Amino acid sequence: MELPEAAARRILDGWPVARLASVTADGSPHQVPIVFARIGERIWSPIDAKPKRTARGPGGAELARVRHIRREPRVSLLLDEYAEIWSRLWWLRVDGRAFVRVGAELGDEGEAAALALRRKYPQYAQVELFRDTPTLIGIEITRLAGWCAAEEAVRRWSG
Amino acid sequence: MELPEAAARRILDGWPVARLASVTADGSPHQVPIVFARIGERIWSPIDAKPKRTARGPGGAELARVRHIRREPRVSLLLDEYAEIWSRLWWLRVDGRAFVRVGAELGDEGEAAALALRRKYPQYAQVELFRDTPTLIGIEITRLAGWCAAEEAVRRWSG
Repeated sequence: MELPEAAARRILDGWPVARLASVTADGSPHQVPIVFARIGERIWSPIDAKPKRTARGPGGAELARVRHIRREPRVSLLLDEYAEIWSRLWWLRVDGRAFVRVGAELGDEGEAAALALRRKYPQYAQVELFRDTPTLIGIEITRLAGWCAAEEAVRRWSG
Repeated sequence: MELPEAAARRILDGWPVARLASVTADGSPHQVPIVFARIGERIWSPIDAKPKRTARGPGGAELARVRHIRREPRVSLLLDEYAEIWSRLWWLRVDGRAFVRVGAELGDEGEAAALALRRKYPQYAQVELFRDTPTLIGIEITRLAGWCAAEEAVRRWSG
Protein backbone atom coordinates (compact mmCIF):
# COMPACT_ATOMS: atom_id res chain seq x y z
CA MET A 1 0.00 0.00 0.00
CA GLU A 2 0.99 3.63 -0.49
CA LEU A 3 2.97 5.10 2.41
CA PRO A 4 0.70 7.72 4.07
CA GLU A 5 1.91 11.29 3.38
CA ALA A 6 2.11 12.17 7.11
CA ALA A 7 4.27 9.12 7.82
CA ALA A 8 6.49 9.98 4.84
CA ARG A 9 7.15 13.47 6.23
CA ARG A 10 7.96 12.12 9.71
CA ILE A 11 10.28 9.46 8.32
CA LEU A 12 12.05 12.11 6.26
CA ASP A 13 12.73 14.05 9.45
CA GLY A 14 13.58 11.19 11.78
CA TRP A 15 15.24 8.45 9.74
CA PRO A 16 19.03 8.64 10.03
CA VAL A 17 20.24 7.26 6.71
CA ALA A 18 19.42 7.44 3.01
CA ARG A 19 21.00 6.04 -0.09
CA LEU A 20 21.85 8.69 -2.64
CA ALA A 21 21.74 7.52 -6.24
CA SER A 22 23.30 9.68 -8.91
CA VAL A 23 24.24 9.03 -12.52
CA THR A 24 27.86 8.82 -13.66
CA ALA A 25 29.29 10.55 -16.72
CA ASP A 26 28.84 7.36 -18.75
CA GLY A 27 25.21 6.98 -17.67
CA SER A 28 25.50 4.24 -15.02
CA PRO A 29 23.84 4.53 -11.63
CA HIS A 30 26.03 5.19 -8.57
CA GLN A 31 24.96 4.84 -4.92
CA VAL A 32 26.32 5.84 -1.56
CA PRO A 33 24.75 5.98 1.92
CA ILE A 34 24.40 9.49 3.34
CA VAL A 35 23.27 11.27 6.47
CA PHE A 36 20.94 14.20 5.89
CA ALA A 37 18.56 16.75 7.39
CA ARG A 38 15.42 18.25 5.87
CA ILE A 39 14.55 21.95 5.94
CA GLY A 40 11.33 22.79 4.12
CA GLU A 41 11.47 21.28 0.64
CA ARG A 42 15.23 20.79 0.69
CA ILE A 43 17.40 18.01 2.00
CA TRP A 44 20.98 18.72 3.04
CA SER A 45 23.89 16.33 3.33
CA PRO A 46 27.41 17.35 4.34
CA ILE A 47 30.75 16.17 2.99
CA ASP A 48 31.80 15.38 6.53
CA ALA A 49 34.95 14.01 8.14
CA LYS A 50 33.75 10.40 8.34
CA PRO A 51 36.51 8.57 6.50
CA LYS A 52 35.66 8.16 2.82
CA ARG A 53 36.61 5.30 0.53
CA THR A 54 38.49 7.65 -1.73
CA ALA A 55 39.59 10.93 -0.33
CA ARG A 56 40.51 13.60 -2.82
CA GLY A 57 42.23 11.80 -5.64
CA PRO A 58 45.13 12.89 -7.81
CA GLY A 59 44.93 16.58 -8.52
CA GLY A 60 42.44 17.08 -5.69
CA ALA A 61 39.56 15.43 -7.57
CA GLU A 62 36.17 15.82 -5.93
CA LEU A 63 34.23 12.97 -4.37
CA ALA A 64 32.30 10.92 -6.93
CA ARG A 65 28.90 12.05 -5.62
CA VAL A 66 29.85 15.73 -6.01
CA ARG A 67 31.28 15.22 -9.49
CA HIS A 68 28.16 13.40 -10.67
CA ILE A 69 25.77 15.98 -9.28
CA ARG A 70 27.60 18.87 -10.90
CA ARG A 71 27.12 17.13 -14.25
CA GLU A 72 23.62 15.66 -13.78
CA PRO A 73 21.52 17.10 -10.98
CA ARG A 74 18.76 14.50 -11.04
CA VAL A 75 19.15 12.19 -8.05
CA SER A 76 17.15 9.71 -6.06
CA LEU A 77 17.18 9.13 -2.31
CA LEU A 78 15.92 5.89 -0.82
CA LEU A 79 15.00 5.46 2.83
CA ASP A 80 13.89 2.01 3.91
CA GLU A 81 13.80 -0.44 6.77
CA TYR A 82 14.41 -4.14 6.40
CA ALA A 83 12.65 -6.46 8.83
CA GLU A 84 12.50 -10.23 9.00
CA ILE A 85 8.76 -9.87 9.41
CA TRP A 86 7.92 -8.76 5.92
CA SER A 87 4.64 -7.11 6.88
CA ARG A 88 6.84 -4.47 8.56
CA LEU A 89 8.69 -3.43 5.41
CA TRP A 90 8.44 0.11 4.12
CA TRP A 91 10.40 2.40 1.83
CA LEU A 92 10.33 6.04 0.87
CA ARG A 93 11.83 7.37 -2.34
CA VAL A 94 12.65 11.00 -2.96
CA ASP A 95 13.28 12.26 -6.47
CA GLY A 96 15.12 15.51 -6.48
CA ARG A 97 17.46 17.98 -8.11
CA ALA A 98 20.78 18.21 -6.36
CA PHE A 99 23.25 21.07 -6.16
CA VAL A 100 26.55 21.66 -4.41
CA ARG A 101 27.39 24.58 -2.13
CA VAL A 102 30.99 25.21 -1.16
CA GLY A 103 32.54 27.67 1.30
CA ALA A 104 31.10 31.16 0.99
CA GLU A 105 28.22 29.85 -1.14
CA LEU A 106 26.74 28.21 1.96
CA GLY A 107 25.31 31.48 3.33
CA ASP A 108 22.42 31.57 5.79
CA GLU A 109 20.77 28.52 4.28
CA GLY A 110 23.97 26.54 4.73
CA GLU A 111 24.25 27.68 8.32
CA ALA A 112 20.70 26.56 9.03
CA ALA A 113 21.49 23.22 7.40
CA ALA A 114 24.62 22.78 9.52
CA LEU A 115 22.58 23.51 12.64
CA ALA A 116 19.89 21.01 11.65
CA LEU A 117 22.53 18.36 10.97
CA ARG A 118 24.21 18.91 14.34
CA ARG A 119 20.84 18.69 16.04
CA LYS A 120 19.89 15.46 14.26
CA TYR A 121 23.29 13.78 14.70
CA PRO A 122 24.91 14.10 18.15
CA GLN A 123 27.84 12.25 16.54
CA TYR A 124 28.96 15.62 15.14
CA ALA A 125 30.19 16.49 18.63
CA GLN A 126 33.03 14.05 17.87
CA VAL A 127 33.21 13.93 14.07
CA GLU A 128 33.82 17.15 12.16
CA LEU A 129 30.74 18.22 10.19
CA PHE A 130 32.96 19.38 7.35
CA ARG A 131 36.34 18.34 6.14
CA ASP A 132 38.48 20.76 4.15
CA THR A 133 36.32 23.51 2.70
CA PRO A 134 32.76 23.29 4.05
CA THR A 135 30.66 21.55 1.39
CA LEU A 136 26.98 20.66 1.39
CA ILE A 137 24.92 18.75 -1.09
CA GLY A 138 21.43 20.22 -1.30
CA ILE A 139 18.52 18.35 -2.85
CA GLU A 140 15.34 20.09 -3.92
CA ILE A 141 12.54 17.56 -3.46
CA THR A 142 10.56 17.14 -6.67
CA ARG A 143 8.60 14.02 -5.77
CA LEU A 144 7.97 11.67 -2.85
CA ALA A 145 6.83 8.09 -3.39
CA GLY A 146 6.52 5.53 -0.67
CA TRP A 147 5.29 2.06 0.03
CA CYS A 148 4.56 -0.05 3.08
CA ALA A 149 3.62 -3.72 3.28
CA ALA A 150 0.89 -3.02 5.81
CA GLU A 151 -0.29 -0.25 8.12
CA GLU A 152 1.57 -1.78 11.05
CA ALA A 153 4.86 -1.17 9.23
CA VAL A 154 4.65 2.59 9.78
CA ARG A 155 2.43 2.83 12.85
CA ARG A 156 5.14 4.54 14.90
CA TRP A 157 5.54 7.17 12.15
CA SER A 158 1.83 7.82 11.86
CA GLY A 159 1.60 10.09 14.92
CA MET B 1 39.27 2.00 4.77
CA GLU B 2 38.62 -0.47 1.98
CA LEU B 3 36.24 -3.30 2.91
CA PRO B 4 38.32 -6.52 2.96
CA GLU B 5 37.49 -8.79 -0.01
CA ALA B 6 36.67 -11.79 2.25
CA ALA B 7 34.22 -9.70 4.30
CA ALA B 8 32.66 -8.38 1.09
CA ARG B 9 31.96 -11.92 -0.14
CA ARG B 10 30.45 -12.98 3.19
CA ILE B 11 28.26 -9.88 3.36
CA LEU B 12 27.08 -10.56 -0.18
CA ASP B 13 25.93 -14.02 0.92
CA GLY B 14 24.50 -13.17 4.32
CA TRP B 15 23.08 -9.66 4.15
CA PRO B 16 19.31 -9.74 3.57
CA VAL B 17 18.64 -6.52 1.69
CA ALA B 18 20.15 -4.42 -1.09
CA ARG B 19 19.06 -1.28 -2.88
CA LEU B 20 18.88 -1.72 -6.62
CA ALA B 21 19.56 1.43 -8.62
CA SER B 22 18.67 1.50 -12.28
CA VAL B 23 18.36 4.32 -14.79
CA THR B 24 15.00 5.42 -16.19
CA ALA B 25 14.26 6.09 -19.87
CA ASP B 26 14.87 9.81 -19.33
CA GLY B 27 18.22 9.20 -17.61
CA SER B 28 17.28 9.68 -13.95
CA PRO B 29 18.31 7.25 -11.26
CA HIS B 30 15.65 4.98 -9.73
CA GLN B 31 15.99 2.91 -6.55
CA VAL B 32 14.11 0.12 -4.85
CA PRO B 33 15.03 -2.25 -2.01
CA ILE B 34 15.32 -5.90 -3.03
CA VAL B 35 15.98 -9.32 -1.54
CA PHE B 36 18.55 -11.39 -3.38
CA ALA B 37 20.78 -14.47 -3.40
CA ARG B 38 24.24 -14.90 -4.91
CA ILE B 39 25.31 -17.89 -7.00
CA GLY B 40 28.86 -17.61 -8.31
CA GLU B 41 29.26 -14.25 -10.05
CA ARG B 42 25.54 -13.67 -10.40
CA ILE B 43 22.98 -12.17 -8.07
CA TRP B 44 19.33 -13.14 -8.38
CA SER B 45 16.28 -11.26 -7.21
CA PRO B 46 12.70 -12.46 -7.71
CA ILE B 47 9.60 -10.48 -8.62
CA ASP B 48 7.86 -12.01 -5.62
CA ALA B 49 4.39 -11.74 -4.13
CA LYS B 50 5.28 -9.10 -1.51
CA PRO B 51 2.79 -6.35 -2.28
CA LYS B 52 4.29 -3.80 -4.68
CA ARG B 53 3.58 -0.10 -4.83
CA THR B 54 2.31 -0.39 -8.36
CA ALA B 55 1.16 -3.76 -9.53
CA ARG B 56 0.87 -4.22 -13.25
CA GLY B 57 -0.42 -0.94 -14.58
CA PRO B 58 -2.78 -0.21 -17.45
CA GLY B 59 -2.20 -2.65 -20.28
CA GLY B 60 -0.25 -4.97 -17.96
CA ALA B 61 2.82 -2.72 -17.82
CA GLU B 62 5.86 -4.28 -16.19
CA LEU B 63 7.32 -3.17 -12.86
CA ALA B 64 9.56 -0.11 -13.18
CA ARG B 65 12.72 -2.03 -12.27
CA VAL B 66 12.09 -4.60 -15.03
CA ARG B 67 11.30 -1.94 -17.62
CA HIS B 68 14.47 0.02 -16.81
CA ILE B 69 16.73 -3.01 -16.93
CA ARG B 70 15.41 -4.14 -20.30
CA ARG B 71 16.38 -0.73 -21.66
CA GLU B 72 19.63 -0.10 -19.75
CA PRO B 73 21.27 -3.12 -18.13
CA ARG B 74 23.83 -1.21 -16.05
CA VAL B 75 22.75 -1.26 -12.43
CA SER B 76 24.20 -0.69 -8.99
CA LEU B 77 23.44 -2.57 -5.79
CA LEU B 78 24.18 -1.06 -2.41
CA LEU B 79 24.39 -3.04 0.81
CA ASP B 80 25.06 -1.10 3.98
CA GLU B 81 24.45 -0.97 7.68
CA TYR B 82 23.69 2.20 9.59
CA ALA B 83 24.82 2.38 13.21
CA GLU B 84 24.70 5.21 15.70
CA ILE B 85 28.30 4.43 16.48
CA TRP B 86 29.85 5.69 13.28
CA SER B 87 32.99 3.57 13.60
CA ARG B 88 30.70 0.61 12.83
CA LEU B 89 29.53 1.88 9.46
CA TRP B 90 30.23 -0.10 6.31
CA TRP B 91 28.88 -0.33 2.79
CA LEU B 92 29.36 -2.59 -0.20
CA ARG B 93 28.57 -1.53 -3.73
CA VAL B 94 28.11 -3.92 -6.63
CA ASP B 95 28.22 -2.68 -10.18
CA GLY B 96 26.63 -5.11 -12.56
CA ARG B 97 24.79 -5.83 -15.75
CA ALA B 98 21.22 -6.90 -15.19
CA PHE B 99 18.94 -9.09 -17.25
CA VAL B 100 15.43 -10.43 -16.90
CA ARG B 101 14.36 -14.07 -17.13
CA VAL B 102 10.70 -14.94 -17.44
CA GLY B 103 8.88 -18.28 -17.38
CA ALA B 104 10.56 -20.91 -19.53
CA GLU B 105 13.71 -18.74 -19.82
CA LEU B 106 14.49 -19.50 -16.17
CA GLY B 107 15.85 -23.00 -16.88
CA ASP B 108 18.24 -24.80 -14.54
CA GLU B 109 19.94 -21.58 -13.49
CA GLY B 110 16.60 -20.10 -12.51
CA GLU B 111 15.72 -23.20 -10.54
CA ALA B 112 19.01 -23.00 -8.65
CA ALA B 113 18.32 -19.33 -7.95
CA ALA B 114 14.84 -20.10 -6.65
CA LEU B 115 16.31 -22.76 -4.36
CA ALA B 116 18.98 -20.36 -3.06
CA LEU B 117 16.34 -17.69 -2.41
CA ARG B 118 14.09 -20.10 -0.49
CA ARG B 119 17.07 -21.21 1.58
CA LYS B 120 18.14 -17.65 2.40
CA TYR B 121 14.62 -16.38 3.16
CA PRO B 122 12.42 -18.68 5.27
CA GLN B 123 9.73 -16.03 4.68
CA TYR B 124 9.09 -17.72 1.32
CA ALA B 125 7.30 -20.49 3.20
CA GLN B 126 4.50 -17.92 3.62
CA VAL B 127 5.01 -15.47 0.78
CA GLU B 128 4.96 -16.75 -2.82
CA LEU B 129 8.42 -16.55 -4.41
CA PHE B 130 6.85 -15.55 -7.71
CA ARG B 131 3.67 -13.78 -8.59
CA ASP B 132 2.08 -14.28 -11.99
CA THR B 133 4.64 -15.66 -14.41
CA PRO B 134 7.90 -16.56 -12.60
CA THR B 135 10.33 -13.69 -13.15
CA LEU B 136 13.88 -13.25 -11.93
CA ILE B 137 16.24 -10.32 -12.25
CA GLY B 138 19.79 -11.58 -12.69
CA ILE B 139 22.81 -9.35 -12.17
CA GLU B 140 26.23 -10.25 -13.49
CA ILE B 141 28.73 -8.74 -11.06
CA THR B 142 31.23 -6.55 -12.88
CA ARG B 143 32.80 -4.79 -9.90
CA LEU B 144 32.74 -4.82 -6.10
CA ALA B 145 33.72 -1.76 -4.07
CA GLY B 146 33.36 -1.50 -0.34
CA TRP B 147 34.20 0.72 2.56
CA CYS B 148 34.22 0.41 6.34
CA ALA B 149 34.88 3.09 8.95
CA ALA B 150 37.14 0.79 10.95
CA GLU B 151 38.03 -2.89 11.18
CA GLU B 152 35.56 -3.39 14.02
CA ALA B 153 32.71 -2.52 11.65
CA VAL B 154 33.05 -5.81 9.78
CA ARG B 155 34.68 -8.05 12.37
CA ARG B 156 31.74 -10.47 12.38
CA TRP B 157 32.03 -10.78 8.59
CA SER B 158 35.76 -11.38 8.64
CA GLY B 159 35.53 -15.07 9.65
